[in-house]
Amino acid sequence: MAQPSTRRPVREDKFSFGLWTVGWRAVDPFGDATRPTLDAVEAVHRLADLGAWGITFHDDDLIPFGTGETERDRQIARFRAALDETGLVVPMATTNLFGHPVFKDGGLTNNDRGIRRFALRKVMRNMDLAAELGASTYVLWGGREGSETDAAKDVGAALDRYREGIDTLAQYVLDQGYNLRLALEPKPNEPRGDIFLPTIGHALAFISTLEHHDMVGVNPEVGHEQMAGLNFVHGIGQALWQRKLFHIDLNGQRGPRYDQDLIFGHGDLLSAFFLVDLLEHGGYEGPRHFDYKPLRTEDIDGVWASAEANMRSYLVLRERARTFRADPKVQEALAYSGVPELSVPTLSPGEKPADLKADRAAFEDFDADAAAARGYGFAALSQLALDHLIDAPR
Amino acid sequence: MAQPSTRRPVREDKFSFGLWTVGWRAVDPFGDATRPTLDAVEAVHRLADLGAWGITFHDDDLIPFGTGETERDRQIARFRAALDETGLVVPMATTNLFGHPVFKDGGLTNNDRGIRRFALRKVMRNMDLAAELGASTYVLWGGREGSETDAAKDVGAALDRYREGIDTLAQYVLDQGYNLRLALEPKPNEPRGDIFLPTIGHALAFISTLEHHDMVGVNPEVGHEQMAGLNFVHGIGQALWQRKLFHIDLNGQRGPRYDQDLIFGHGDLLSAFFLVDLLEHGGYEGPRHFDYKPLRTEDIDGVWASAEANMRSYLVLRERARTFRADPKVQEALAYSGVPELSVPTLSPGEKPADLKADRAAFEDFDADAAAARGYGFAALSQLALDHLIDAPR
Amino acid sequence: MAQPSTRRPVREDKFSFGLWTVGWRAVDPFGDATRPTLDAVEAVHRLADLGAWGITFHDDDLIPFGTGETERDRQIARFRAALDETGLVVPMATTNLFGHPVFKDGGLTNNDRGIRRFALRKVMRNMDLAAELGASTYVLWGGREGSETDAAKDVGAALDRYREGIDTLAQYVLDQGYNLRLALEPKPNEPRGDIFLPTIGHALAFISTLEHHDMVGVNPEVGHEQMAGLNFVHGIGQALWQRKLFHIDLNGQRGPRYDQDLIFGHGDLLSAFFLVDLLEHGGYEGPRHFDYKPLRTEDIDGVWASAEANMRSYLVLRERARTFRADPKVQEALAYSGVPELSVPTLSPGEKPADLKADRAAFEDFDADAAAARGYGFAALSQLALDHLIDAPR
Amino acid sequence: MAQPSTRRPVREDKFSFGLWTVGWRAVDPFGDATRPTLDAVEAVHRLADLGAWGITFHDDDLIPFGTGETERDRQIARFRAALDETGLVVPMATTNLFGHPVFKDGGLTNNDRGIRRFALRKVMRNMDLAAELGASTYVLWGGREGSETDAAKDVGAALDRYREGIDTLAQYVLDQGYNLRLALEPKPNEPRGDIFLPTIGHALAFISTLEHHDMVGVNPEVGHEQMAGLNFVHGIGQALWQRKLFHIDLNGQRGPRYDQDLIFGHGDLLSAFFLVDLLEHGGYEGPRHFDYKPLRTEDIDGVWASAEANMRSYLVLRERARTFRADPKVQEALAYSGVPELSVPTLSPGEKPADLKADRAAFEDFDADAAAARGYGFAALSQLALDHLIDAPR
Repeated sequence: MAQPSTRRPVREDKFSFGLWTVGWRAVDPFGDATRPTLDAVEAVHRLADLGAWGITFHDDDLIPFGTGETERDRQIARFRAALDETGLVVPMATTNLFGHPVFKDGGLTNNDRGIRRFALRKVMRNMDLAAELGASTYVLWGGREGSETDAAKDVGAALDRYREGIDTLAQYVLDQGYNLRLALEPKPNEPRGDIFLPTIGHALAFISTLEHHDMVGVNPEVGHEQMAGLNFVHGIGQALWQRKLFHIDLNGQRGPRYDQDLIFGHGDLLSAFFLVDLLEHGGYEGPRHFDYKPLRTEDIDGVWASAEANMRSYLVLRERARTFRADPKVQEALAYSGVPELSVPTLSPGEKPADLKADRAAFEDFDADAAAARGYGFAALSQLALDHLIDAPR
Repeated sequence: MAQPSTRRPVREDKFSFGLWTVGWRAVDPFGDATRPTLDAVEAVHRLADLGAWGITFHDDDLIPFGTGETERDRQIARFRAALDETGLVVPMATTNLFGHPVFKDGGLTNNDRGIRRFALRKVMRNMDLAAELGASTYVLWGGREGSETDAAKDVGAALDRYREGIDTLAQYVLDQGYNLRLALEPKPNEPRGDIFLPTIGHALAFISTLEHHDMVGVNPEVGHEQMAGLNFVHGIGQALWQRKLFHIDLNGQRGPRYDQDLIFGHGDLLSAFFLVDLLEHGGYEGPRHFDYKPLRTEDIDGVWASAEANMRSYLVLRERARTFRADPKVQEALAYSGVPELSVPTLSPGEKPADLKADRAAFEDFDADAAAARGYGFAALSQLALDHLIDAPR
Repeated sequence: MAQPSTRRPVREDKFSFGLWTVGWRAVDPFGDATRPTLDAVEAVHRLADLGAWGITFHDDDLIPFGTGETERDRQIARFRAALDETGLVVPMATTNLFGHPVFKDGGLTNNDRGIRRFALRKVMRNMDLAAELGASTYVLWGGREGSETDAAKDVGAALDRYREGIDTLAQYVLDQGYNLRLALEPKPNEPRGDIFLPTIGHALAFISTLEHHDMVGVNPEVGHEQMAGLNFVHGIGQALWQRKLFHIDLNGQRGPRYDQDLIFGHGDLLSAFFLVDLLEHGGYEGPRHFDYKPLRTEDIDGVWASAEANMRSYLVLRERARTFRADPKVQEALAYSGVPELSVPTLSPGEKPADLKADRAAFEDFDADAAAARGYGFAALSQLALDHLIDAPR
Repeated sequence: MAQPSTRRPVREDKFSFGLWTVGWRAVDPFGDATRPTLDAVEAVHRLADLGAWGITFHDDDLIPFGTGETERDRQIARFRAALDETGLVVPMATTNLFGHPVFKDGGLTNNDRGIRRFALRKVMRNMDLAAELGASTYVLWGGREGSETDAAKDVGAALDRYREGIDTLAQYVLDQGYNLRLALEPKPNEPRGDIFLPTIGHALAFISTLEHHDMVGVNPEVGHEQMAGLNFVHGIGQALWQRKLFHIDLNGQRGPRYDQDLIFGHGDLLSAFFLVDLLEHGGYEGPRHFDYKPLRTEDIDGVWASAEANMRSYLVLRERARTFRADPKVQEALAYSGVPELSVPTLSPGEKPADLKADRAAFEDFDADAAAARGYGFAALSQLALDHLIDAPR
């Protein structure tokens, strides 16, 4: 074809990957690891080669749980050297409060107070490292905070402890003078039967109750919302609207089922297109972070092919979203559909409820049947978007 | 059996029904009405006879869209007389912003500004009637606020308009001196492909951004959250925790599928049990409102049998929840599971992050493996709850 | 762009539409009709103009339930004249056993024997018309065959009656000498809480028990399987493998929720791509039938735009599937993944279980760890498919 | 209460457990094992003590993959001795074709022919053991037979190989003279994105194509069907109707999400009630097999408490189902609802399609509106079932 080849990712694209993604050994509930351990230093080099900009980690990804101080320092030094060598940055870090059996009933909301305290300390310790490595976002995914039976938790008490925990951590960041913002990551279920703060909405609502609410936002993941059948683009739209989209996890999912963590674009492709459109044109400037799992069928070549595929999907969709927005036919269709009119306030400047009530044109003289006859042109608009997404001849 | 018969509902139980529930004519997407129109006055009398305490309505339930003023007044007078005669109250009212074709793209977030203004006026008008009839809660369900393609809406603009609308209505209530609180009802989808404020969480988050946030809470519906596979008890727990449970819609649903509006208890029975337990022991004092649809296969006798069944389910579950809470074996099992310990703050009184960091017992000397060995006893607790629910010999 | 414009649909594409699709008046569970009745004759002309090849109908679409004989004949004559004028064919017809209240508990499995007999006669009557109009497929969608409570039906008895019904109708076709095959259309739920024969699999299994199993196949619908979270392509693959794909309903759906009937391609786009690939390269030669609903927000212009969009989606995807199959890189990737090797029998020609047991290379000397090390290259293959679908520069 | 205590399970109840259930070490996708290995001999003794009748196993449960012959024989001898000592039987066995990395793309439908052959041999080897231990059912769960991208598999070829594999194994059973029937276990997804034979229906349909179809039935699992939102009772009803319910896996699930394997009764309780009712009154005489996972939060005491809970749930539900069926009010309600009438053939004895067509009472003189007016009483019937399930005062 005559089209120019899609360019390779560059640092300015701000693509980042979790160390646990390319490093996933592919243990699943029904099977053993299919891949050997991936050295973090190799991960840094390979991701840099592929054009990524950042790498992120859980404490236990980098330094296995229970490692002694000396070995820990050595691991950190090696990792740091690799970062320096490649120029890869660490924009975000997070804590593993789910893998070790001690967290089987959660970390910050564990029914056991000693474990809650341990969890807070584990987070604080990795926050120190995150700050040291220059991260600006600290993610908290409470995958074990929840229950399988409603008898197991007093939800109010659990949310009290959750709030106490997050506010304590935020205070710690302030006390230490770290340049970190916190980002909560919602998920409806798995590994717990039901997880607290199951969606973007619940997390945003919870944040509004925090003492340090200004320091805390969300880190939504494509698949997590789609596991609840929710529209991820709408969720991200609300998070942006509340100025709380601090970070984002990109991947793919095929509806309500187990957490698939597919390559970005390999799930609901239309939604991925509108997501990229929103991120690119909606004011989000943070990392484009991939939190996916290379399929268990793949060897290490497949791992790197899949890492590349995530970025490729994003870049192509970005190009298509730009073309979509720039197309005069699209502008026309949007206008026909009344999309820009939704940005016009419903009340006139200075209009009060009483004024509206007095406006006979708004109600008494309003011809509802005539207004109902209007077609919104959403079918045509939708097909235009599809055409741009797949670059159909127009 | 020797057990006393479950007592009939009484006014103190605060059971209320939507006029549109028993009055549903059973039109569905694939079929015509199977029941004749039910006169509102008859509905009032029959519900009162069955032991209900309240009746609620959409404006168009009581007075069909487009009815002239004189006829409207006559309908209201008849309805009012029936209320007076029976003692039934109107604890809540709401607006139909979804049935007439003019609302096919929504009311408060319609892309058409004229329709948005009309919608506000329609709400204001019925708020006048609600206040007049003594309602204390005004519900807003935005079933048409949403889209089927992400191209059709700028989510930020939609939420701006939604906020403008709700704040305008709250201001109207204040201006009029009405004793009304507003309650938003979330739903993930149907009739729109995706509805804005899809869950309890999204609605609570949205409310936190309102100018009049103190006047606005939520009216969650069992089935709506379960359509997203979410734990309704957890959602209600969060709403109560945020002091925003202003009203509740009880019914049944069998997971992610079309909105079934089954009889309360006829969906996820274990969840219904824990819900009643939470409502009865979690501080909720509002109406127990049934928002269900009598099956389309039923004639009018079946309608009244189904109305009765809702209250019966609630009363039996309430009895069982009380027995559950009172059982010393349950208390013991809860303690074993650490449920009360979750109410103990994680930090000691006055403890700061630095203090926690200095506490070696919390981390350096904490034996994670030993702590991990603990069993939480959730299986036994869960079975105890089931035993109480079904009154199994214990 | 330099690419040739996608050509318009032609008769050879075998695109057909249900009269009830473009004719849908947009009544839904929460709202009234937003569009006027569409004359069947106009539907025929417009669809022909757009390049469609066929039109299909339920008896009640063409002739409202209860119409007298004379008027019925007049309607049929008008319809027939329009067909003759335009050349549009009627490849399929079906019976409405769900709209009239008499079918509220189903047709062929209604608990009321009189209604079951009435249902059979209603089908027979429209089979006469279908045969007269030249249809070769007769679809049976049992949308009301099911229940909301398991107490309402003895499933075995229901399946007995279902079998009796289908076999009776097949016998009728034979007796009359009609050139008709029957196609059952599965759906998991809506309008009934649970519908019998909920998936392609259940329908195929049921068919295997019929006396006239050779005359009966399936008419799967994209959205119906996706409402159960099932892979439609796999389902169609099995139906083709069992030589039972007699007809197909194309549309779009966004996972488990109410039946959306979106435009083909406007749901799960990747699945739509693989579906077209399978239909085009898997030996299916029947109609490409669209069973969708134009969005309720659309006026009549939007209806025709949406009809066009269905065909457009199919044509573009067909082009992309052809390019995909023809690409040597794809062939190579498929070979690397072992896809062609799956067509090689596992046993050698003439090999018996005992021979396999005696083959030490198959087990005793098989190096499982070595075999496990193989990467399957599915990530790369998947991205190649995505690239072809969206025509990304490769 | 005055009620007699529910009796403990006895051998005649035919309760069996998978060795992998109580023996699950609680590794999940996000966390390590929380429990030590459970010795198979201890499992046998404890299950026998609790009143279980049988124990089942995968080859690798009993003898880890790769164990040498001598050690294998020793393990089998120990297991056998424990069986002899306790009287526990082995009614069923199955093969692990999913845990080892070699099966990452499946066993019988792996794209790699060598692995397919290895898989067949692995099954044959464990069939020998199963027969030796007296099992009468051999289950095949193809959890890895499937794909995450539709490009990875030619579905027709996969089903060809699946059929070849099952027929080869059935032939092996015949050749060896084993008293074994095969039972296929469907599942929609997890661990593969989409699994072949995703539901009871698809499995039954597939079986109908087998050479040895008479020897092959299904082993449905509660949670697997509910992961697809399907009605398990309807599915079991169809399997029984096709005389293919060879075995059953009882557990609990809370709708479409990851495979939860909860205690039986701890998921959809109403469905569990109707399931027990169907098994007890629908002619099923096989094992009541529990395939669940003790929650990861439990220690070994919790494991045995959960094992007990499964049987307890079943016994109470069985008691309630008996009371339900015996209640004259229920009989009356069933008759009112027309449930027995569904067992009456729709055609009269000897009636042919032509006879039905000639019966004017069936159509021309049938008063559809009058027939439509009938109420089916399903609401009352449904509440009666609920009342019996929870033993509500009636």
